[in-house]
Amino acid sequence: MMLCFTSDYTTGAHPRVLEALQAINLRETAGYGMDEDCRAAAAHVRDLCAAPQAQVHFLVGGTQANLVLITAALRPHEAAVCAETGHINVHETGSIEAAGHKVLGVPAPDGKLTREGIEIVLAAHADEHMVKPALVYISNTTEVGTVYTDAEIEAISACCRENALALYVDGARLGSAIAAGGASLKTLARCADAFTIGGTKNGALFGEAMVLTNPALMRDFRYIMKQRGAMLAKGWLLGAQFAALLQDGLYFDLAAHANTMANRLALGMKDRGYGFLYPPVSNQIFPIMRDGAAQRLMQHVQFQRAQPLGDGESVWRFVTSWSTKEADVDALIDFLEPVN
Amino acid sequence: MMLCFTSDYTTGAHPRVLEALQAINLRETAGYGMDEDCRAAAAHVRDLCAAPQAQVHFLVGGTQANLVLITAALRPHEAAVCAETGHINVHETGSIEAAGHKVLGVPAPDGKLTREGIEIVLAAHADEHMVKPALVYISNTTEVGTVYTDAEIEAISACCRENALALYVDGARLGSAIAAGGASLKTLARCADAFTIGGTKNGALFGEAMVLTNPALMRDFRYIMKQRGAMLAKGWLLGAQFAALLQDGLYFDLAAHANTMANRLALGMKDRGYGFLYPPVSNQIFPIMRDGAAQRLMQHVQFQRAQPLGDGESVWRFVTSWSTKEADVDALIDFLEPVN
Amino acid sequence: MMLCFTSDYTTGAHPRVLEALQAINLRETAGYGMDEDCRAAAAHVRDLCAAPQAQVHFLVGGTQANLVLITAALRPHEAAVCAETGHINVHETGSIEAAGHKVLGVPAPDGKLTREGIEIVLAAHADEHMVKPALVYISNTTEVGTVYTDAEIEAISACCRENALALYVDGARLGSAIAAGGASLKTLARCADAFTIGGTKNGALFGEAMVLTNPALMRDFRYIMKQRGAMLAKGWLLGAQFAALLQDGLYFDLAAHANTMANRLALGMKDRGYGFLYPPVSNQIFPIMRDGAAQRLMQHVQFQRAQPLGDGESVWRFVTSWSTKEADVDALIDFLEPVN
Amino acid sequence: MMLCFTSDYTTGAHPRVLEALQAINLRETAGYGMDEDCRAAAAHVRDLCAAPQAQVHFLVGGTQANLVLITAALRPHEAAVCAETGHINVHETGSIEAAGHKVLGVPAPDGKLTREGIEIVLAAHADEHMVKPALVYISNTTEVGTVYTDAEIEAISACCRENALALYVDGARLGSAIAAGGASLKTLARCADAFTIGGTKNGALFGEAMVLTNPALMRDFRYIMKQRGAMLAKGWLLGAQFAALLQDGLYFDLAAHANTMANRLALGMKDRGYGFLYPPVSNQIFPIMRDGAAQRLMQHVQFQRAQPLGDGESVWRFVTSWSTKEADVDALIDFLEPVN
Repeated sequence: MMLCFTSDYTTGAHPRVLEALQAINLRETAGYGMDEDCRAAAAHVRDLCAAPQAQVHFLVGGTQANLVLITAALRPHEAAVCAETGHINVHETGSIEAAGHKVLGVPAPDGKLTREGIEIVLAAHADEHMVKPALVYISNTTEVGTVYTDAEIEAISACCRENALALYVDGARLGSAIAAGGASLKTLARCADAFTIGGTKNGALFGEAMVLTNPALMRDFRYIMKQRGAMLAKGWLLGAQFAALLQDGLYFDLAAHANTMANRLALGMKDRGYGFLYPPVSNQIFPIMRDGAAQRLMQHVQFQRAQPLGDGESVWRFVTSWSTKEADVDALIDFLEPVN
Repeated sequence: MMLCFTSDYTTGAHPRVLEALQAINLRETAGYGMDEDCRAAAAHVRDLCAAPQAQVHFLVGGTQANLVLITAALRPHEAAVCAETGHINVHETGSIEAAGHKVLGVPAPDGKLTREGIEIVLAAHADEHMVKPALVYISNTTEVGTVYTDAEIEAISACCRENALALYVDGARLGSAIAAGGASLKTLARCADAFTIGGTKNGALFGEAMVLTNPALMRDFRYIMKQRGAMLAKGWLLGAQFAALLQDGLYFDLAAHANTMANRLALGMKDRGYGFLYPPVSNQIFPIMRDGAAQRLMQHVQFQRAQPLGDGESVWRFVTSWSTKEADVDALIDFLEPVN
Repeated sequence: MMLCFTSDYTTGAHPRVLEALQAINLRETAGYGMDEDCRAAAAHVRDLCAAPQAQVHFLVGGTQANLVLITAALRPHEAAVCAETGHINVHETGSIEAAGHKVLGVPAPDGKLTREGIEIVLAAHADEHMVKPALVYISNTTEVGTVYTDAEIEAISACCRENALALYVDGARLGSAIAAGGASLKTLARCADAFTIGGTKNGALFGEAMVLTNPALMRDFRYIMKQRGAMLAKGWLLGAQFAALLQDGLYFDLAAHANTMANRLALGMKDRGYGFLYPPVSNQIFPIMRDGAAQRLMQHVQFQRAQPLGDGESVWRFVTSWSTKEADVDALIDFLEPVN
Repeated sequence: MMLCFTSDYTTGAHPRVLEALQAINLRETAGYGMDEDCRAAAAHVRDLCAAPQAQVHFLVGGTQANLVLITAALRPHEAAVCAETGHINVHETGSIEAAGHKVLGVPAPDGKLTREGIEIVLAAHADEHMVKPALVYISNTTEVGTVYTDAEIEAISACCRENALALYVDGARLGSAIAAGGASLKTLARCADAFTIGGTKNGALFGEAMVLTNPALMRDFRYIMKQRGAMLAKGWLLGAQFAALLQDGLYFDLAAHANTMANRLALGMKDRGYGFLYPPVSNQIFPIMRDGAAQRLMQHVQFQRAQPLGDGESVWRFVTSWSTKEADVDALIDFLEPVN
């Protein structure tokens, strides 16, 4: 049987999440997120964020969440700034452009945007013949598994506020980022105008919690959700899942497990002599491996090539999740050929 | 405790659907609908439709399904034609316009479009200073609970083909339409370019199966899904639900139950002297009731006003579903004041 | 030779306008409307409007002007309200929908929107499942040649301000409206958030002056112009034309001439026994004529059918302009068959 | 008095163009481009292109032309490929994204796209999680004054056809390109699916002729024009200008003059020791000059900085046009400080 390390959304939900859905399955509930589970989960999120004024909305998926937020935030001539590798720039089939907005990609070798990168974009967009940068998009963790710390989020936020840019943090893998010592929920709530807490990749069947801290974004947000097909009829399915995940810190425990599995795998790789493109810190790791060795490994393990390096060598991507088993990690390590 | 007759999406999923999700919860599965459950469910749909060439895609919700299909079908200057009461024209927050297309509403007192209505629109759109009608949207059942028969679908389809219009049938309540003697899946597959089979309102947690019979619509359909945030990461959740619903005809049994409950309620209303705006045939019924009587009933039952008629009288909307209990219908009937 | 009464844009520019363009033809001038002619014309417009704070932009055409203004004014889920016959609703090929916004048409038999019509739309749009009316679009003169007075504009404006709706007046034929006793420039500047002063149909080769009085609309307006292809490279061509038209009241004299010609024609028609669908007051008039008589007249005169009335009778549309010759009007009258 | 070398659209029209407009000023003419001047000019264009099946449309400006063509060509998930410096990528305020499409910029040091650049983009866009490259946009001359030859256009066209990409050539400065030995009209008509012949920058008041050779683009093109506000009411103003420009080869003479003036200026600069970023071949030239010398020159001459090089040196942009006077070029040369 193949070991699976291709992504963190290859299994369903944590059993406690499924039980929560089972428990209320036949209850009569108001639709469209106007229910008690959504209210309770939103209150819990606000508590964890120390953001009593925040609005919390629940959406099914990440592309949807990014699309709705950016649509709500920008006027037609305004653009989003992100790392060249940013998910909205590469892997969402032009959803932001389909909503009318240019995405301005900034080279960012480790996937992380900096004040310098943002300022270069601002300097290059001077008049009405060019789009106007108006929102900064970052992901934590990033697309290459790196993590923004509290200090880095604060620095980006300061730059954004100086330049009238909204800051939006895509937290599809926020659990892993926090478990890896990344910026806390409270820092995000203080520094970002909006951010998501991803459920799909950390214990839920599906679901992203969108936290809005900037009142300008809150106005009519549900209209935009509905218009983009992002308002789930049985909205309580989202509220109930997040309520279950947030109870007793399950969400953070699951993320810690995923990181622990990735670290264990990374150690095993280092032991066998593999290097990494970026220091492995979260639940996605990027070892460098000869193509032949990788192909032999693929007879036993599913994983993906991230980037060819030439000379018969590539960067590869291994992902762990809340449901990764330690035995599978160890089995994978056993399959690794030592680098000589 | 209140009886609930406001909609057909106030409870979760049929137990067999939940069991199916439970059974595969920890299985490692490919994402984005590229899995065996989706393949099996799609094959089953093709069989039921006698449409071996059809493409079947699974989406989470109805607004999403309508939006993706119409986006895939139309060039920028082309418009959708529908009944003035059409869901896309009234209750989807302008999602079709947000995708760039005008919706041309046609007066249709019973919610049903006819050849005559379509031809009036065509005659009124003669040159490039006006949008070009290019797609006809209908729902079965309609927004007011009426049902298109096989013959009616064939007539609309003939009109569409004569005029180079695509025909799309929104089947959010297709189960109820079929159970009420409406057009069959085979007729739809033969007559429409695309249609949906709604799961959300008939036993699923969520989910609409999109059936594409016109090859022009198939091209790159998954790109449009992804771009609009309508490709579920854990796509097997949709395939597995539809597989469970289609097994042994569960889907049709559930719809028949909903209709039976609505018929029982309608009979009780008729016995007490109530008239109806439209003959009650599907799982939505629209009795006429004095406002005072309705308000007193609302102390025991949740339901909605559809339309005021003046003189202290209104049309009201009662909806049943697969999970409506006969005892609740009877309890509702007991609360009804006789019309004197 | 055929007489031409089909529209008010069948000839070029008033000679003084052409002379102005000739005079500066080889002058080196800054592009994109950043020139002294545009500045002078804008200042003149502000003076005439008694609106020293207004922004004035010059655009080439009417569809462009409507599209840019409404794009600048609305968020994605917001809609424009207009008469069912409104130009943006019928004759601009869905340009507003292509910019993402629903147009809500209100029945208006004489082409004029009223508080009652607006309030019906507002009452029907109650929650986030429907678009949110946010801007009222009217034309002066209307598409059927009727005229809003000062009092009517003030009433609509009051309704808009009570309901947080922007008011935009399409003045493609504003000269004719003012010459017919319609609302003044000063009233418009006080009551509307934005309006245009049409040049194309009143002495210019092309050009519409957009007057913005609401500061929220001014922000980044030139970005939206550029993005929609509505910023003319040699912008001074617009400034110079408006400067010429506004000098010594030429603009108003030309409009008065057009109306005088239409009135003369209407009197001739009345003398011969013709009735009108609307009282003829501006440069578009709509007599009722038997189809046979109209067809015979078309051997000598170009004009259009506005609307069939049945029974061999229709409403017809005749349009005069600044360049209509009195002799042509009289020749047309001579061709008219008396109604017996 | 300042010498003006900032752009090629700082003066009006060639006298023969103005005379043509004057001559027909009071003629009654059908609107929207349905007139004899447009027909005649279109026929002349087809002749020059040896493309009897081509459709020719006349638009006011370049952003408009690009926007309409690309809107007509692409489905929602499809993207345009161009040089990173491409006008649609940088200087049209995101008009293509506002129409819903991603622009994929390819590094191109000399402003010219190659097969290699296109193939890198194609290889990077493999599945439905990414946009689908479907159209290649190039300009001739490019944004940096370089020129595609017949052979280069043929090579790009071959690559496009192998990969099902449409090829669109923005000819805002096509006259200058042809006069510099660039690809001929016949080559363009044979190799491109669509291209423009720019009038604004070569003798017209305004106007771009859009030549469509691919029948798929012709379908309903006028609908898209109208919808985007790109159909001029007095369309004959465009037809008459192009008719005048194409008569007796005036268009090509004017372009040759602009290039001659630029070459004379470039020679003067070389004589004084200046180098160029790109070999100066068309009517835009890019000398390298120390910032101090440039600032002193700016006391007498208007021109722009293209790009700072660091160390007190920059690339500067000088543009000539059909109306540039030889005496002004010589005066400019006299102001140049020799490089020591």
